[in-house]
Amino acid sequence: MIAEIIAVGSEMLTPDRQDTNSLYITRGLNGLGVSLAFKGIVGDNRQHLTDAIRIALKRVDVVVLSGGLGPTEDDLTRECSAEALGVELYREPELMVALTRRFAERRMTMSANNERQTEVLDGAVVLDNKNGSAPGQWLDTTVDGHRKILILLPGPPKELMPLFDNECLPRLAASLPQRHLARRTLRMALLPESQVDARCAPIYQRFTDIETTILAGNAEITLNFVCTKPTQEEAEQRVNALTELIEHEMGDSIYSSHGESLEEIVQLMLGLRDMTLSVAESCTGGLLAQRITAVPNASRTFAGGAVVYNAQQKTTLAHVPADLIAEHGTVSEPVARALAEGIREVTGSKIGIGITGIAGPSTLDGADEGKPVGLVYVALADGEDTQVKELNIRGDRDRIRYWTTQHALEMLRLSLQ
Amino acid sequence: MIAEIIAVGSEMLTPDRQDTNSLYITRGLNGLGVSLAFKGIVGDNRQHLTDAIRIALKRVDVVVLSGGLGPTEDDLTRECSAEALGVELYREPELMVALTRRFAERRMTMSANNERQTEVLDGAVVLDNKNGSAPGQWLDTTVDGHRKILILLPGPPKELMPLFDNECLPRLAASLPQRHLARRTLRMALLPESQVDARCAPIYQRFTDIETTILAGNAEITLNFVCTKPTQEEAEQRVNALTELIEHEMGDSIYSSHGESLEEIVQLMLGLRDMTLSVAESCTGGLLAQRITAVPNASRTFAGGAVVYNAQQKTTLAHVPADLIAEHGTVSEPVARALAEGIREVTGSKIGIGITGIAGPSTLDGADEGKPVGLVYVALADGEDTQVKELNIRGDRDRIRYWTTQHALEMLRLSLQ
Repeated sequence: MIAEIIAVGSEMLTPDRQDTNSLYITRGLNGLGVSLAFKGIVGDNRQHLTDAIRIALKRVDVVVLSGGLGPTEDDLTRECSAEALGVELYREPELMVALTRRFAERRMTMSANNERQTEVLDGAVVLDNKNGSAPGQWLDTTVDGHRKILILLPGPPKELMPLFDNECLPRLAASLPQRHLARRTLRMALLPESQVDARCAPIYQRFTDIETTILAGNAEITLNFVCTKPTQEEAEQRVNALTELIEHEMGDSIYSSHGESLEEIVQLMLGLRDMTLSVAESCTGGLLAQRITAVPNASRTFAGGAVVYNAQQKTTLAHVPADLIAEHGTVSEPVARALAEGIREVTGSKIGIGITGIAGPSTLDGADEGKPVGLVYVALADGEDTQVKELNIRGDRDRIRYWTTQHALEMLRLSLQ
Repeated sequence: MIAEIIAVGSEMLTPDRQDTNSLYITRGLNGLGVSLAFKGIVGDNRQHLTDAIRIALKRVDVVVLSGGLGPTEDDLTRECSAEALGVELYREPELMVALTRRFAERRMTMSANNERQTEVLDGAVVLDNKNGSAPGQWLDTTVDGHRKILILLPGPPKELMPLFDNECLPRLAASLPQRHLARRTLRMALLPESQVDARCAPIYQRFTDIETTILAGNAEITLNFVCTKPTQEEAEQRVNALTELIEHEMGDSIYSSHGESLEEIVQLMLGLRDMTLSVAESCTGGLLAQRITAVPNASRTFAGGAVVYNAQQKTTLAHVPADLIAEHGTVSEPVARALAEGIREVTGSKIGIGITGIAGPSTLDGADEGKPVGLVYVALADGEDTQVKELNIRGDRDRIRYWTTQHALEMLRLSLQ
């Protein structure tokens, strides 16, 4: 069974508003093994909305509409649904009684347009909305010989969520063959998407019952596997079988096989080994420390460090000898090494990371003459050994800074394995 | 002219991912007077995507597709567009040369699947993507006797945004009747949206020819004014007239009246006064330094600082007396003051900022007993005077950290005025 969600409302077609109801609805549908094939937003326009509902009823089994159930002339979801289905709308007397009572209890006069909220699609079940005046509707019907479920929900999340959970999900579960869903997420840093796909596609393509998606961005690749089966055990077995094969192919490149971030994994590894970390950052300007401390409880493994944004601070805060900088320039292998070793000693932590480089856009910003934007040195010192990596990172300032921190975290992860 | 945006990718049909490109694209389209009639998300499914493109080409004038242009089997936007339009795809030899060069420059082997990225719709203009390997495409064509513009853009925002701004908007503007647009953006930190709107709405509502939007988020309010007129001068005059009245009403609260970020403004002000800044951060863990150094040329005014993520580092790196910490606890007014004064002296900068607080979620993470999550002290020392602010910030770890840095930057801005 596949579904489509349509959010109704012209305000969600502006640059400043997002539809978020669909995320909530998707989670509920997925939990029952119903996957989403389309989602869309349509404005308060009779022709557009009627057509969109008609198209949805043709191409999916379950159509969920949110919004457009209020009392104003703009609220067209009931009428357009009726027109798309070719059924009548009737005014339900019980709803009128309830609505009149609702207004009386609030000592408000009910304007005539409120009566539109008592209109019900012929054949639909009315879903009682305890948090607002517009009820939802559930219609289990047949279109061109196929069974279709059409659900109408009010737009405000506080009304939609309980109606969906309490009135729609149980009805949907009862109309479905029992299915269960398993999901796994593998993450890899710094590899190009094409390379990951060239190696993984021959494996995951054999698992036609698993939906695989590859996401590339922010210096990493995420592989998502989703499988739906009659039992949870079967679904998990399949997803685990595929995960094992991919792990075998990609080996150490996979830093996380349950979706954790690189920062979380590194922190976990440091914690297990009872180690502490400190950093001395030049071109990344605090971004590495910020990423590490964005994870709760970072203080257990992270001592802190220094943002050494000019030559003098490299000496003051991380004890890099001034003559070393004079000899090699701030962006150099020896200075990166000295930053890592220096901050490690200053803070008394087990591991020190040193970063120096040119983030651009201009080479004037902290650059040494003759050295290009994107040249970065990352060093990792553990008291026994110091390794330094020279990087040439393309792109703009943000990208160079982010990729640098990704390299640093990945170096740290591999050194802890 | 009306438009439809289709975001392509199964990952955006999951409960955890939103399409955000469409907001950016909508803003650009609206700026040219093109309004959005539909937006939708379609998974990586050949039949679904082809149908969705076919439907869009029927019902709107401009169709913008984002995503699905990568090298993998999953990337179907080119093929499905060709099928929906009934045109051929051909492999463009120049693109192949560029792609091969791109891989060679990065010393990476190009896997065969990358060649798919050289496929071009017959009749389309290739849009050069400087930030990625997948080019965009622009096709101005006729479907059933109506003029249709189809735009294919890569999914990653950093690739999509410049391609859309530089290659698509000018082409679109050229295909539309000539209109001129003026835009102003005012920004204010830390104020509640309802308060800003209560004061500004009576003013901007009088300018019915200006489209005003208020955006709240990330500890600030942004007011956008857009005006379209037959001449540039007229449009600018109107927008400036409104801006002046709003500036008069909101006074010093407005930190930027041409859209600059708070970090940029602070850096500009420091530069004009020939002053340098350093920071000592505890709970924000480098986020303040990171925000400041995200602005190019930060090294002219920013010396650096320390991330002092435990008590010992506060003493080692920022010279906070250990007995002061023992007496008052790490999260206290005197420690914030000592951090600001200490880092100022250690780095020899004109201004020092000190931050200490509890970002949560658990009070165990760096917290002092009996002090609540969200309690933060921010101190600013300039050699003559040290001011300290006690904050109680609601929300999760990310929010507490971000709002803290916003308070610090705003304190600095006001002190420099």
